[in-house]
Amino acid sequence: MEIRDQRKLPHEYCVHALRSWQDAETAIADMYVRGAPLIGATAAWGLYLAAVEEPTAAAVRSAAASLLESRPTAVNLRWAVERILRLVHATPDTNLVDTLRRDAQAICDEDVEISRGIGEHGVALLEGISRAKSGATVNVLTHCNAGSLATINYGTATAPIYFARQRGLDVHVWGDETRPRSQGSQLTAWELGKSGVPHTLVVDNAGGHLMQHGLVDIVITGTDRTTRCGDVANKIGTYLKALAARDNDIPFYVALPSTTIDWQARDGVREIPIEERDGKEVSHVRGIADGRPVTVCTTAASTPISNYAFDVTPARLVTGLITERGVCAASEDGLLELFPEMR
Amino acid sequence: MEIRDQRKLPHEYCVHALRSWQDAETAIADMYVRGAPLIGATAAWGLYLAAVEEPTAAAVRSAAASLLESRPTAVNLRWAVERILRLVHATPDTNLVDTLRRDAQAICDEDVEISRGIGEHGVALLEGISRAKSGATVNVLTHCNAGSLATINYGTATAPIYFARQRGLDVHVWGDETRPRSQGSQLTAWELGKSGVPHTLVVDNAGGHLMQHGLVDIVITGTDRTTRCGDVANKIGTYLKALAARDNDIPFYVALPSTTIDWQARDGVREIPIEERDGKEVSHVRGIADGRPVTVCTTAASTPISNYAFDVTPARLVTGLITERGVCAASEDGLLELFPEMR
Repeated sequence: MEIRDQRKLPHEYCVHALRSWQDAETAIADMYVRGAPLIGATAAWGLYLAAVEEPTAAAVRSAAASLLESRPTAVNLRWAVERILRLVHATPDTNLVDTLRRDAQAICDEDVEISRGIGEHGVALLEGISRAKSGATVNVLTHCNAGSLATINYGTATAPIYFARQRGLDVHVWGDETRPRSQGSQLTAWELGKSGVPHTLVVDNAGGHLMQHGLVDIVITGTDRTTRCGDVANKIGTYLKALAARDNDIPFYVALPSTTIDWQARDGVREIPIEERDGKEVSHVRGIADGRPVTVCTTAASTPISNYAFDVTPARLVTGLITERGVCAASEDGLLELFPEMR
Repeated sequence: MEIRDQRKLPHEYCVHALRSWQDAETAIADMYVRGAPLIGATAAWGLYLAAVEEPTAAAVRSAAASLLESRPTAVNLRWAVERILRLVHATPDTNLVDTLRRDAQAICDEDVEISRGIGEHGVALLEGISRAKSGATVNVLTHCNAGSLATINYGTATAPIYFARQRGLDVHVWGDETRPRSQGSQLTAWELGKSGVPHTLVVDNAGGHLMQHGLVDIVITGTDRTTRCGDVANKIGTYLKALAARDNDIPFYVALPSTTIDWQARDGVREIPIEERDGKEVSHVRGIADGRPVTVCTTAASTPISNYAFDVTPARLVTGLITERGVCAASEDGLLELFPEMR
């Protein structure tokens, strides 16, 4: 499996081949790859590589235990690892490599289909806004990167936007910077620019002001884990945008593959573990100076820092969930209508 | 007048002497100085320097017109300039230099007294929380820098915190980074560190999460302009924190010298002009690499950027205003009770 090194965008475009399950673990933990669906796919390929190295159930299980520790919040990681472990349980060691390769590929293929479904269901929302505005520009605000870089192709939050462009809708995207890792300024802006989607970068602080002044028609974000009751864990700061959307009567949607639903969890604030990362992600900023990549320290060396990576947006602030099966209310009833097998 | 170059903190501590009114204008527009009270004081010294250069009312008025353009949102600038212009109107040219020097000094002296008043009235709120928590740590969240660097000495939002420390209260401050200019990570963290106040830097996205988890007891920010009805213009992102405070039943206070009240304005969202600044403040970040100051570009060169500098927090989200005369409700009635002369 080849991965794009997202840490170096937009300044450098590097592709790495994963050669061992440890490579996959490093890629996930150190955020070469991020985005819930891509983390799941990378973990699946990592377990395949573990089987290649030592084709025994024990070896794959040991790698799985280690991979599960690499990022605590994204539920796709657990979903993908548990799916592979069920296969491992049912597969003799002699077939392990082939079976795991096929399933890792299947996870990727399914992700493409899921993104397509999210795009098709989500674009209807944008078409509705466009009609209500008599074809004037539809302004979408998004936070972090739930784009093509976070998945295998269309993205989740961006899938409706890419579909809207294909259908000729006049769409403009406000992209939050998304400190501290700046996925908005470094990934979302980069991929929207490459795809020719009109967009404007703003700092994370700006969304409330934009909404107060009628400059946002809809908010669409991704999610790393959604509870059975519709609470949404996503990149830190998402909750603040949901509050601003509610205060200004702007619809706030979350796009998600059903693989990011944690059917066991109900109360997101109480039950979803929130990853804390190194404070250096806040104090140190990577960029380009004189044409070369440079990392600068922006704070006094002695400044204490906390770095929570995610927050939880309660379901009551979420207008709807855009899934591959359709759009539903952010509630247990809403989700179970689309996923009756989870009753 | 000497100013500290706030653009270079926390990495370098530079003091510049202002030698002309144009120096004062540059210091304000390019943000060597920021913070509403300090901007007012700097403008007053600028007009004194204009009189030194050419001791005529016409020369001072011409400099005043130019200074008024340097930052549109902070009302102290207008307040200080108009105060000086009233003096100019009443003063023969031969006395102009002396009169303007005395009044610029008076503005600075008054600012010290105002900060002291804000500190004394505000510390009572922190003492109340400390008592309710049986002496456990009082966690204050602040946004941007409304500290000693923004005023002549105690600051506005920080004055209650400094007073609390003097009285032995156990206080801890969460400081928002405050993108794009990072006044939180570069100024607030620096001055709290120098003063020995326990503090932790977080990104602007984190405040909602902290409040959801009971880690914030009170929010105190400054303001650049407050309307007669209690709407508060402050650094972009303040509105988002006020929404989070309301959603979590946490008191949200704004500390202000009465010189930042715009008695003519009522509806802040509609009436207060919001400064838009160069997008380079977002794309380019200054820090230290290998011991030397370096500015890096963090985005693709082609990324379009908007950079709104302030937002407006509606009075309905503000628990109270901490002024030099006392604490009042964020409403016309509340303000007029403390400032009956404005009826």
